[in-house]
Amino acid sequence: MIVLKSPKGWTGPTVVDGVQIEGTFRAHQVPLSDPAARPGHLEQLEAWLRSYRPHELFDAQGRLKPELAELAPTGERRMGKNPHANGGLLLQELEVPNFREYAVEVPMPGVSGIGDTRVLGPFLRDVAKRNEEQRNFRVFGPDETVSNGLGALFESTNRQWDAETFSNDEFLAPTGRVLDSMLSEHQCEGWLEGYLLTGRHGVFNCYEAFIHIVDSMFNQHAKWLKVTAELPWRRKIASLNYLLASHVWRQDHNGFTHQDPGFVDHVVNKKAEVVRVYFPPDANCLLSVMDHCLRSRHYVNVVIAGKHPAPQWLEMDAAVKHCTEGIGIWQWASNDQGSRPDVVMACCGDVPTLETLAAVSIMREHLPDLRIRVVNVVDLMRLQPQSEHPHGLSDPAFDDLFTTDVPVIFAFHAYPWLIHRLTYRRANHANIHVRGYKEEGTITTPFDMTVLNDMDRFHLVMDTVERVPQTGQRGIALKQRLQEKLVEHRRYIEANGYDLPEIRDWQWAR
Amino acid sequence: MIVLKSPKGWTGPTVVDGVQIEGTFRAHQVPLSDPAARPGHLEQLEAWLRSYRPHELFDAQGRLKPELAELAPTGERRMGKNPHANGGLLLQELEVPNFREYAVEVPMPGVSGIGDTRVLGPFLRDVAKRNEEQRNFRVFGPDETVSNGLGALFESTNRQWDAETFSNDEFLAPTGRVLDSMLSEHQCEGWLEGYLLTGRHGVFNCYEAFIHIVDSMFNQHAKWLKVTAELPWRRKIASLNYLLASHVWRQDHNGFTHQDPGFVDHVVNKKAEVVRVYFPPDANCLLSVMDHCLRSRHYVNVVIAGKHPAPQWLEMDAAVKHCTEGIGIWQWASNDQGSRPDVVMACCGDVPTLETLAAVSIMREHLPDLRIRVVNVVDLMRLQPQSEHPHGLSDPAFDDLFTTDVPVIFAFHAYPWLIHRLTYRRANHANIHVRGYKEEGTITTPFDMTVLNDMDRFHLVMDTVERVPQTGQRGIALKQRLQEKLVEHRRYIEANGYDLPEIRDWQWAR
Repeated sequence: MIVLKSPKGWTGPTVVDGVQIEGTFRAHQVPLSDPAARPGHLEQLEAWLRSYRPHELFDAQGRLKPELAELAPTGERRMGKNPHANGGLLLQELEVPNFREYAVEVPMPGVSGIGDTRVLGPFLRDVAKRNEEQRNFRVFGPDETVSNGLGALFESTNRQWDAETFSNDEFLAPTGRVLDSMLSEHQCEGWLEGYLLTGRHGVFNCYEAFIHIVDSMFNQHAKWLKVTAELPWRRKIASLNYLLASHVWRQDHNGFTHQDPGFVDHVVNKKAEVVRVYFPPDANCLLSVMDHCLRSRHYVNVVIAGKHPAPQWLEMDAAVKHCTEGIGIWQWASNDQGSRPDVVMACCGDVPTLETLAAVSIMREHLPDLRIRVVNVVDLMRLQPQSEHPHGLSDPAFDDLFTTDVPVIFAFHAYPWLIHRLTYRRANHANIHVRGYKEEGTITTPFDMTVLNDMDRFHLVMDTVERVPQTGQRGIALKQRLQEKLVEHRRYIEANGYDLPEIRDWQWAR
Repeated sequence: MIVLKSPKGWTGPTVVDGVQIEGTFRAHQVPLSDPAARPGHLEQLEAWLRSYRPHELFDAQGRLKPELAELAPTGERRMGKNPHANGGLLLQELEVPNFREYAVEVPMPGVSGIGDTRVLGPFLRDVAKRNEEQRNFRVFGPDETVSNGLGALFESTNRQWDAETFSNDEFLAPTGRVLDSMLSEHQCEGWLEGYLLTGRHGVFNCYEAFIHIVDSMFNQHAKWLKVTAELPWRRKIASLNYLLASHVWRQDHNGFTHQDPGFVDHVVNKKAEVVRVYFPPDANCLLSVMDHCLRSRHYVNVVIAGKHPAPQWLEMDAAVKHCTEGIGIWQWASNDQGSRPDVVMACCGDVPTLETLAAVSIMREHLPDLRIRVVNVVDLMRLQPQSEHPHGLSDPAFDDLFTTDVPVIFAFHAYPWLIHRLTYRRANHANIHVRGYKEEGTITTPFDMTVLNDMDRFHLVMDTVERVPQTGQRGIALKQRLQEKLVEHRRYIEANGYDLPEIRDWQWAR
């Protein structure tokens, strides 16, 4: 390595207006403030530019002399052709095992799961294994890979670690494919960006709230993707994949500081061509989504998934179809077949899906005449108009799902207004009523988090009763019972520190 | 200072399930995974807790022994009463000079200004001066205080600097009240938060795009404000004031990397009780807004203002009235007096206000029969419903300004969808058509930035013609002329590198 230390502003104007420029902080941008208006500055500018002896470099017509032009490299030796600066040229396909082999059995909707990211773990483990020789794939995380449910990775690889080790250490090796020995989101993001830009593949796993730490770094990468996608000589690189696994709804012992689902708001400000956001509702959907993300190019993919035991809804074939569509009616949960629904219960995210289905089960028991349609959203960008995002549903397709005039009760993982921002142009927008995280939280039970933000099953039912007058007196009576249930919930968790048995043990029964 | 180094997990379980815990990374949270299900773990838990000898601390009824309870300090000696932990107790009023004395003369709307933050500079200079003895006020910035137009501060104070100095240095002194000798937004934010939390006052000046660097730190401060506002024994502290002065529309030589107006999207996700966002359209409004922010308590105030020469619209009395209302009709720019307008031209931000007024002047010349109402927004939160934000306009007040059925052409400083997110519940929402930054940019002329994002005066007129059919054939002809003008603009800037004379020299003439 050669280190050249030169004075700041070296060979520029030494002194301007009696003040030393060269070698000082003042040698910044063009140190002559206004050559057009100040003849002295113009003289200095001319002397400075002439010091590069342009008469030796250009001919009388101002053309670069041919013997100099010839010095520039040609063809593959040009800077833009250097694969180190155009990583897409070096990109090898990632060897991805068949994600269907990692599926969980879902003999009926609502069976218990071990935690969605814990199902994904073995898949990522085998991606790491298959690409070990090619040195082509890495997982990045700020000391949270195990906490995010991805401990299975350490069955096939280690944390990369070149420093001292102790007998009690775990999963450290110089050859490790996981970089998570430093609690720095900045470091992870920087490493991953460099890794992708030089033609490799990777995943960044992070607590949802703390991914905001790299908001500004994400911005620059997204801008880089936007601009380079427009340059034909730039080859596409692998996508930047975020897996946000310890999310807002399940910070049971961390509390309010760890609750922030706003990274998606930040991401969707960037160009639609570049950004993708996924909320797989269960483990099979997560497998399908991650397989897609790992194969994609030149995007930023944000995937939000849970790590806690949670119900599973779709067997793998259904999950693949659902994720391919990105949005759809869950017929098995709906009872509006062949008729116009009275209400559309929409959900996006694992916890909102659970609460929505629990709300549906309450209504199907207590308001059996109500025709309910359940719509689940995996690919958030499907909600936007086609004109705004390549994944956007056409207006007729959107109206097929959400109707043009029926109340929609929408339970959303993140801040509720994002749904309005995405759907305000849709015909039925005025009837879309969204519940989501509204910055209420603390250290409390999982169900209480949804209660604090009015997104729990009881509130979803009460919202429906308020917006669907045909629920009539039965609806009003039900609403009052649920209000009492919320009081009971509060008393119970204060006394016990965990949720009511009927909440903890609830199961989809249809 | 005493430094105590103790083993991690000291006095907790030494070994669990045959694995060393105490003194290792495993001593994290409760190192006994499931005492309820595993009798061995329960035994260890009991032994651990008994090691604190609770029988010596509590009586048979489980009450803390009185002789121990007496040890706790009382009254002012309690930790919550310690002013170092409750900075509001120490808070002294900031001595603020009369901001009206710094006003610019505006004999008629549209006179040239020197750059709005350059007018603010002397005001902040004198705030620093007046509070020098109390050591009560500081300005923070990542090496950008001069670049942000606040160089006047150095007429009364310096950058705080305790290290070596050289003869050529400027404005460095150990007593300096400006902390900007380190290009680190993180450092500025951390310093300012600590300064506010210990009962002092401050302003953070930053490039708009790079304030995202502290998104995550802002989150935690906003959460802290929300929670402590609910605790009666917590005294309120001074607000965290952001002045974003080098903004998206004027990154003439920095380009795309420096263009991001999304901090406001991030901020408005936090609790309405805590966040305030201001877009003063000119220097007198900026003075009025900053005076208000400096006097406010327990908020996060985001103020976005320009530093480049720009037209001035309101003399000081009018500016104070306008900023106090936060939103209002600019009668002097409107011609719908006493009648229903054909179009509402709304604007928020200094550059959008300029382009809107230029569009209005084109329309008043070429479409003289069109009744135009100009609405300017200083306080962004006025747009939200009253139920969502304490500053929100009531629905009747909103409808008075924006009508319930007239097209609204809204030019906005930041991402356009934020306006939809704030107004989707308003009666006239379907008619609100917003232009703003849509992530198109590069190194180009100031006017071209607005053209690239369809927010320029010509696009605003064309939008109006498209949405107001009564502009008829005259409108269609005008639209075509403006399309040609845009072609002329493109050719001109490509040849000259600066904007058309009619753009550079445009002046409000009514």
